[in-house]
Amino acid sequence: MTNKLDAFLASRKQLIEQQLSLYTERLAMPETLKKSMLYSLEAGGKRLRPLVVLAVLNAYGKDEKDGIPVGCAVEMIHTYSLIHDDLPCMDDDDLRRGKPTNHKVFGEAAAVLAGDGLLTESFKLITSHVSEAVSAEKRLRLVDELISAAGTEGMVGGQAADMEAEQKRITLEELESIHERKTAKLLGFSVTAGAILADAPEDEVEKLRLFSSHIGIGFQIRDDILDIEGHEEKIGKPVGSDSSNEKSTYPSLLTLEGAKEKLAYHISEAKQIISGLSLQKELLHDLCDLIAARDH
Amino acid sequence: MTNKLDAFLASRKQLIEQQLSLYTERLAMPETLKKSMLYSLEAGGKRLRPLVVLAVLNAYGKDEKDGIPVGCAVEMIHTYSLIHDDLPCMDDDDLRRGKPTNHKVFGEAAAVLAGDGLLTESFKLITSHVSEAVSAEKRLRLVDELISAAGTEGMVGGQAADMEAEQKRITLEELESIHERKTAKLLGFSVTAGAILADAPEDEVEKLRLFSSHIGIGFQIRDDILDIEGHEEKIGKPVGSDSSNEKSTYPSLLTLEGAKEKLAYHISEAKQIISGLSLQKELLHDLCDLIAARDH
Repeated sequence: MTNKLDAFLASRKQLIEQQLSLYTERLAMPETLKKSMLYSLEAGGKRLRPLVVLAVLNAYGKDEKDGIPVGCAVEMIHTYSLIHDDLPCMDDDDLRRGKPTNHKVFGEAAAVLAGDGLLTESFKLITSHVSEAVSAEKRLRLVDELISAAGTEGMVGGQAADMEAEQKRITLEELESIHERKTAKLLGFSVTAGAILADAPEDEVEKLRLFSSHIGIGFQIRDDILDIEGHEEKIGKPVGSDSSNEKSTYPSLLTLEGAKEKLAYHISEAKQIISGLSLQKELLHDLCDLIAARDH
Repeated sequence: MTNKLDAFLASRKQLIEQQLSLYTERLAMPETLKKSMLYSLEAGGKRLRPLVVLAVLNAYGKDEKDGIPVGCAVEMIHTYSLIHDDLPCMDDDDLRRGKPTNHKVFGEAAAVLAGDGLLTESFKLITSHVSEAVSAEKRLRLVDELISAAGTEGMVGGQAADMEAEQKRITLEELESIHERKTAKLLGFSVTAGAILADAPEDEVEKLRLFSSHIGIGFQIRDDILDIEGHEEKIGKPVGSDSSNEKSTYPSLLTLEGAKEKLAYHISEAKQIISGLSLQKELLHDLCDLIAARDH
């Protein structure tokens, strides 16, 4: 808790989590479905995506109020994707953040429906829960941006491409394209949604889109690095051994050193972009450092 | 092909099917995902939901153009729900309309993603593919109505309630509430969306919402009746034998005769509502008759 971002995140996280639960609590639906949706929504996590929406609004010196439903919308999308990804027919994971996955608790059918419900309702937070001060045009644009980030040209497409690439040697370009869609675009929505809500100039919205692509790819490279260095510290597995499971990663394609260089490159590019914008830079610089150095 | 509706449906169906394919073709996504989405979108069916959007616009004497993307949106939602419902963890169906179900052809993971993709992209048809003549407020309202019809307070909630009710004796009221959400609300979206696009007076939009509830419930009762009478004609299964599988249906709760009376009641109420509206009644009257008498 040494930088401005940490204090910012800590102070907003509870609010985000309260609202996430409240939106869902208020919907009329069968008890089991609601429990299943709330179970995954309340399973913790960094809440990075909603917090980034607020951080961008804050950096532009704007009221963060309307960032809350928009941030909760993207968190609901993220949560649905985890529920569906964990299903036996997908990654078949029994644990997520140390707790049994949704389908282990509620069964597969309920998990499919909980995901479908979260995905569908997420858009309503934008259409109906932001204040009247946000014009209908702007709300429509936010829905549109969220669809692009989450749909077949974004997260769903990235997940499908990832499945196709399994057990296959792919190029760095293909790997980048998968992560761009699977991870970076949804995080990118948070950044651009914050900028759109803040009435940022259009050229800055586009620069922030590029910024978010750099931090999104950086986020994924750090994930790959942690996978190796985490293993090293904990179970003494040698560096690079993950390449033996035939899944292409940044270290497997670039070496660990090369991956670290690439991470540094994307973080540096991201910071460079921020330097040219009409906003308070500190929070977003700290965000870059967080992504580059996070240990979980 | 004896009434006005038949001719109307026949002339519009091809257009709807062309556009459904075209919207999906144009999206950039991995080949397998696209094939899987198109496979289910192009698997046929009555296309009742999009056609109803156009029928309501036509009844109000309005251009049907903007009804096409809106109708395709609801058909994409309907299609995603069939893909997810057919999954082994849900109804575990191998065949749909005489063809192998999506997951039998593409695998379960691809079927989950195809459903997620169709659901996500459906909203984009409303946000981005209706003409500029439809105000942003109206498009937002349409998205909102579609979420209410398809989400936890609508179709997804009805599906979850249906699962909870399986192998259980439920009351007529509970049965009605399940079908209202699982079937009637999405059909209701088609009716109200048509009215909203037609700039119908607000009181007529609400009357049409009630109309759609009657025809939606009527649709489901006819389904239950066909299940019995279809069996009788084809395999000589005695009337009412479906009650032995412990799934509550209208005939099992009301007798076959009682179900037919209830169907007649809802159709009559629906026609009554139409009589009081400022539109050409013939198409929608024919729609009521089609629902009451359909043989598949």
